[in-house]
Amino acid sequence: MFANPFNLCLVLGMRAKLSELGSRQKPSDITRLMAIALEQPNMLSLAAGFTDNESLPIGDVHEIVGEIAGSGSAGKAALQYGANKGREGLRALLAKRIRSFDTLSEDALDNERLFISNGSQQALYLAIQTLCDPGDYVLVEQPTYFVFLEILQGFGVNALPMPMEASGEIDVNGLESLLVQAEVDGILEKIKAVYLVSYFSNPSGHCVSEKVKSDLGALLSRQKTTVAVIEDAAYRELYYQDPFESRSSLALEEFANLPVLYTSTLTKPYASGLKVGYSYCSDTNWLNSMLNVKGQQDFGTANFAQAIVEGALESGRFDTHLRALRLLYENKMLTLQESLAPSLKSLGWKWDQPLGGLYLWLQSPNEMRTDADSPFHDSCIEEGVFYVPGDLCFASTGNRDRIRLSFGALNTDEIQEAARRFVAAAASMTKSATA
Amino acid sequence: MFANPFNLCLVLGMRAKLSELGSRQKPSDITRLMAIALEQPNMLSLAAGFTDNESLPIGDVHEIVGEIAGSGSAGKAALQYGANKGREGLRALLAKRIRSFDTLSEDALDNERLFISNGSQQALYLAIQTLCDPGDYVLVEQPTYFVFLEILQGFGVNALPMPMEASGEIDVNGLESLLVQAEVDGILEKIKAVYLVSYFSNPSGHCVSEKVKSDLGALLSRQKTTVAVIEDAAYRELYYQDPFESRSSLALEEFANLPVLYTSTLTKPYASGLKVGYSYCSDTNWLNSMLNVKGQQDFGTANFAQAIVEGALESGRFDTHLRALRLLYENKMLTLQESLAPSLKSLGWKWDQPLGGLYLWLQSPNEMRTDADSPFHDSCIEEGVFYVPGDLCFASTGNRDRIRLSFGALNTDEIQEAARRFVAAAASMTKSATA
Repeated sequence: MFANPFNLCLVLGMRAKLSELGSRQKPSDITRLMAIALEQPNMLSLAAGFTDNESLPIGDVHEIVGEIAGSGSAGKAALQYGANKGREGLRALLAKRIRSFDTLSEDALDNERLFISNGSQQALYLAIQTLCDPGDYVLVEQPTYFVFLEILQGFGVNALPMPMEASGEIDVNGLESLLVQAEVDGILEKIKAVYLVSYFSNPSGHCVSEKVKSDLGALLSRQKTTVAVIEDAAYRELYYQDPFESRSSLALEEFANLPVLYTSTLTKPYASGLKVGYSYCSDTNWLNSMLNVKGQQDFGTANFAQAIVEGALESGRFDTHLRALRLLYENKMLTLQESLAPSLKSLGWKWDQPLGGLYLWLQSPNEMRTDADSPFHDSCIEEGVFYVPGDLCFASTGNRDRIRLSFGALNTDEIQEAARRFVAAAASMTKSATA
Repeated sequence: MFANPFNLCLVLGMRAKLSELGSRQKPSDITRLMAIALEQPNMLSLAAGFTDNESLPIGDVHEIVGEIAGSGSAGKAALQYGANKGREGLRALLAKRIRSFDTLSEDALDNERLFISNGSQQALYLAIQTLCDPGDYVLVEQPTYFVFLEILQGFGVNALPMPMEASGEIDVNGLESLLVQAEVDGILEKIKAVYLVSYFSNPSGHCVSEKVKSDLGALLSRQKTTVAVIEDAAYRELYYQDPFESRSSLALEEFANLPVLYTSTLTKPYASGLKVGYSYCSDTNWLNSMLNVKGQQDFGTANFAQAIVEGALESGRFDTHLRALRLLYENKMLTLQESLAPSLKSLGWKWDQPLGGLYLWLQSPNEMRTDADSPFHDSCIEEGVFYVPGDLCFASTGNRDRIRLSFGALNTDEIQEAARRFVAAAASMTKSATA
């Protein structure tokens, strides 16, 4: 028996020489913050974008696996390697689903342009990897999905924030000026894509209206350079009462000449532990490049996880589950909001009530800082409640008065207690400011 | 309802401008060949590395999912997001498994250095992505795993073939000369890693002896540059009668000063549709870089697939299944070999009988070409049997007389029929050569 050879290695070992990309990597900000927060016992996290645990459809999944197990060789094949692009049946069901959301005719969308990925996250990664070289630019909303910003950082790609209206919509005229300026500055050719979180955004809950989306498509179509469109519709199905009435870029004629990647996921609306996302790409060359890279990364998302969601979609269990989930998340949102509202609003905090999604997006009074180095953040950690500092969701600096609260993971009692702690931290800041 | 907007797009659309990496991608050779072959009806494929379908443990998996479903909130949590690095329990079981293979003491190996990936494929991808810039070099065996060569090609990295003994072992003295020459040529610093398929290799079935492995580690430790070691042990557990007696680079003192990534998988020995691989990295900096990139690619392999393999390992079902699988694959290997041997050997074909794995590695007589453009390849397609041309497994050109036959996927009757067709193609070539 050898003793631990790595005690030796730790002392004497040569360290691997990393690539430019490898050297550029840094830990996810939020992972780092969570590690610190979790050192505190009894911490309640309003940070993690985890989904509701008690409602996870383990009963459904057990039944579906039973059906797979009972279907002979075809069932066994679900435990076999699958195709790089994903299961044909699942891809057809999902293309049909997009057609239905976007009121497209049956001959719209080519199922062969739809592929399955390890959550929609992998599709975002492949999109940037195949479009962008270090030093390139990607247009993003303010705020935007912070893990997407981490992807850009990992590739050495610049996030270029788009001007925004106070309503949370993209200021398309302002964007036009930005693009004119980019041409003057000689960087227009380096703007490779625009990234939209278009339905019940993570973090803001905002939806991009069809009018703004169309105007954006028209603007991009007029450019001398090709700006690809990455539309992240991860939360599209997680509305509370009604779907948001805006067709996707796959259906709007203003986007017909643009390379579009529409990406969504079955994880948030069903089971995140299955990690099955899906994307539709209108540009053959780009699609093939992404699929070739995916072939090198994993040659296909776990076939068994795909078979389970295919079974859930086919049997209608998926939609039954989702209907219940919408009510559940609306109730959780209302619980959080009602537990916060009177006290927090009287302290000058502001937010819009979302119509879907998993987040409340708060603005502090008087531009009080909420970033990880702020007294307010310290105060929350002390009270035992944890949030995502909003500045992580901005490509530009200086937006340090926002907070993302997630109500997905905690149960009703925990949400109420977390809200109580959050309000206590907020009150203590006001008190110390006026003291 | 809109008609298909993409009829328009196909005609007028602007194509996405791809990155250098995106532009470099080309379809996998084997995928391209298989697409051609599968146009032929009744084709029997000895090409795909698929595993045996009938033995896939769907009954096991159904039971395990039942146990998960019956375990309340903890069970539901298997459908929740997991940690980027993978399930703690699973990682501990796998570290223990490596310790057992490598006869290491209980305090050897730090469980925190073991991570779960989407098959071992993703770990190979992350390793190269974080080590190599375009123009760098990676040392490979001849032959080597062809998908690894595709990863290198995708990153613009050069595969540098190591000199080999006739036995299939690395010629370590020859490698030393190669490294001296590399220094003279000014490329030594660009050699970032060595890649070993060390147990029952895909494609050759060869195992690297402990002596050769130790000599290699000693040679690399003497270099002025740090060459990381990537040991791919995907087939280590798929021996037929006895494990191959060679400890891994994690256990050999000659590697104690080198950055080592040891990677393996639960897909081949259990269920490829679950796509759960695992890796151990001795270099903290490199490990963290890979994990940060993995966080961007998918922030964790599907938790549910991990929970299933964890259940299989914990309950002993994994090992029971694997014992049966070893016998099954040995019998399949024997079936293929006995169906080929008398006729094919009399025609001058050669191969070694493997002691594990899923492949026979054949050499044609008189250096007869077997590549995809060869008459022999055409002849096999005509007969209705399909193989992996061996030249795809070489980094250097000119090795066009080898063939990889996989016996994993076909049943006994199909193997016999595929062998009959293969022999017919071989015989027809000999006949036409002597006509």
